[in-house]
Amino acid sequence: MSKASLSRLARRTGEPPISWLMSTALARPNLISLAAGFTDNESLPVNEVRALLEDLLGSARSGRPALQYGTTPGDAALRRLTGEHLCRQDGPKAMAQLYAPERLIITSGSQQLLYLLSECLCDPGDLVLVEDPTYFVYLGILQSHGIESRGIPIDPDGIDLAHLERTLESLKRSGALPRVKLLYLVSYFQNPTGVTTSWARKAAALQLLRRYERAAGHPIYVVEDAAYRELRFAGDDIPSLLAAPRASDRVIYAGTFSKPFATGARVGYGVMPEPLMKAALRVKANHDFGTSNLLQQLLKQALDSGLYDRHLAVLRQRYARKAVVTTRAIRRDFPKSVEWAEPRGGLYVWARLPKAVKSGMRSKLFQTALHHDVLYVPGVLCYADDPSRRKPDHEMRISFGGATLPDLRAGIARLGATLHELLG
Amino acid sequence: MSKASLSRLARRTGEPPISWLMSTALARPNLISLAAGFTDNESLPVNEVRALLEDLLGSARSGRPALQYGTTPGDAALRRLTGEHLCRQDGPKAMAQLYAPERLIITSGSQQLLYLLSECLCDPGDLVLVEDPTYFVYLGILQSHGIESRGIPIDPDGIDLAHLERTLESLKRSGALPRVKLLYLVSYFQNPTGVTTSWARKAAALQLLRRYERAAGHPIYVVEDAAYRELRFAGDDIPSLLAAPRASDRVIYAGTFSKPFATGARVGYGVMPEPLMKAALRVKANHDFGTSNLLQQLLKQALDSGLYDRHLAVLRQRYARKAVVTTRAIRRDFPKSVEWAEPRGGLYVWARLPKAVKSGMRSKLFQTALHHDVLYVPGVLCYADDPSRRKPDHEMRISFGGATLPDLRAGIARLGATLHELLG
Repeated sequence: MSKASLSRLARRTGEPPISWLMSTALARPNLISLAAGFTDNESLPVNEVRALLEDLLGSARSGRPALQYGTTPGDAALRRLTGEHLCRQDGPKAMAQLYAPERLIITSGSQQLLYLLSECLCDPGDLVLVEDPTYFVYLGILQSHGIESRGIPIDPDGIDLAHLERTLESLKRSGALPRVKLLYLVSYFQNPTGVTTSWARKAAALQLLRRYERAAGHPIYVVEDAAYRELRFAGDDIPSLLAAPRASDRVIYAGTFSKPFATGARVGYGVMPEPLMKAALRVKANHDFGTSNLLQQLLKQALDSGLYDRHLAVLRQRYARKAVVTTRAIRRDFPKSVEWAEPRGGLYVWARLPKAVKSGMRSKLFQTALHHDVLYVPGVLCYADDPSRRKPDHEMRISFGGATLPDLRAGIARLGATLHELLG
Repeated sequence: MSKASLSRLARRTGEPPISWLMSTALARPNLISLAAGFTDNESLPVNEVRALLEDLLGSARSGRPALQYGTTPGDAALRRLTGEHLCRQDGPKAMAQLYAPERLIITSGSQQLLYLLSECLCDPGDLVLVEDPTYFVYLGILQSHGIESRGIPIDPDGIDLAHLERTLESLKRSGALPRVKLLYLVSYFQNPTGVTTSWARKAAALQLLRRYERAAGHPIYVVEDAAYRELRFAGDDIPSLLAAPRASDRVIYAGTFSKPFATGARVGYGVMPEPLMKAALRVKANHDFGTSNLLQQLLKQALDSGLYDRHLAVLRQRYARKAVVTTRAIRRDFPKSVEWAEPRGGLYVWARLPKAVKSGMRSKLFQTALHHDVLYVPGVLCYADDPSRRKPDHEMRISFGGATLPDLRAGIARLGATLHELLG
């Protein structure tokens, strides 16, 4: 009688791989972690947040509402400012009504939005199409809910459309299409590869999915996870899929203020069609009836005062610098047989080793790197449990978000030495 | 193809009744809401929070971690302080190891904890025992997850043990006991009735459940929701069920800092046995990988500096005053045929009308009250969908939490006039 009577959901839910990586990092004080998706510590807007909160709490008029309950969808002014902010980014193609406050929900990080969407759209046994590889915590949500997935390969321009079409055809033939609920795209500086999906690719993917809706018997949504969008430091921004034709009732946009402003504040948001919004709000009401109002007021003030944009400009320069330091070190220290691409935004460099060299947690490479006190995220963790292919196991995600500049140099040097040791 | 392909969970999830009450309140500017479970605006610790945040963000040393990601279980120091705080409240019976940080998780309000527990313990079709009446948002979570419930009546000392035993016997006879996962008790100044469960009652309920575990085939937990515990303004505190014999592997304690400190900060916590904690942490990692660190650091400073306790003392006096104003007005303005009890803590007065007088949202009483610009929570909303009895429909929950003193007086006067009008 000591065994817990856990639910199926609890029994399905695996230990997040990142937990092991984090506890390993904590247990080795000299370890340099190039694994964690942490943001840069030195550029956190400590003084700016202090001043904003001082303003906010300096009067009972704005202070009291900040410390009182809010509403489930989130502060109306924050939703308006967020919609305007997003509409501006999307440029002339964007239809203002798609960014209206009624289509916006404020969440506890965009992670909570991904969770709500999975709850609202998918039953156990349903199918989600993901990039191959993709964001591993999203894979954890799918696993927990008993949702299956199929991986669609990506290249430097994003999702492989021909492969997407073949997958849809094959699902149609096998009668599995009614179980397909959505395509999940991390469309800007993707976690883990750093790839940004081109406008043409994502717009075409949306149209392609439309063609299979009749056979599916219901809409097939695109969830565009834009977590890293604002962390661009080279090239021009690309409009979100919200700006594509006929996007209003098919595209769900997941955004966040955590990464571009302060991860400790954990405020994210979603834009979505009406019937889904209604469901998401009801479920969110059960989760927490609304994200902390204090955090929402903080972000509202940051956006409204222009401080958010000013901080973002600083942050972009900072990550540009960290990316240069990282890639310069990689160029110098890694064997020439390792393939990788110069990031133009985000927090990650994705490195491909010769196929014979395994990089998983039990691999000689990973263990040797750990022995040299350096940690990366094994690529294999970022691949969905897709029965139609084997998971590649010769890649690694290197994060330049959290480590200091000297640690980035030293970490890459250690990893390079490890690679030379193993590649001979 | 315009119909959304919503999940079963989404289709089961009803509109929260409180949404309608809230939008009604917003649409009528002169309305006095005695419905919302909001906390007192005037005593919100605006200056205190401002000073704490100023300290916290005044140095990069404490400021940066507050704006960085934390860990999924929550800040270790906050969990230690929370455990100590709780252990002190539980007094000499409490075994310190039950309050250890490893048994604690920090959540986004205790609401999120209730959600996580439902996910981790219950499958659709499972059964939960609740007080009759009980906290209606919890009923919303159950409904959303397809979890059935049975209501156990309460009296001024809490749960009716004989009725609990009869229910367990009947479930055993019908073979439904294996579906029973937990008993949910709002044990202090219950929402909605204000009833506090006596120590003897809750300890006996725990032992009683143990006797049915063999037939259930698994542990039957008690979830003790202590959301209002610290809002006591009369009499002595009662230890939590954690202090009962053999509680360590059966009792889950849900606490919150939102109500006794600042609802806008939304920090709650749970204490639970190891196998459940493991599951809850995994699921929480998928929800949000940890509650906002900034809010956690704020609460940590509040507890550590003694400010939390000082504020609580002020808050108790404030609610004591609001309760007196409310009950004095009720005594004066309500017809003598209405039954109610003097609250000793919490935010609510529960009023029973003569059985012939309906109080539901479509009732003449509710509509007349609305016409007189006063709102209460109809009692019927607080009863589980239990097929074994009809839902009582002649009660109302009156909250003295949010309204000002003049509004409490005026609101009760309006409600009294309405009642006199209808009761003749």
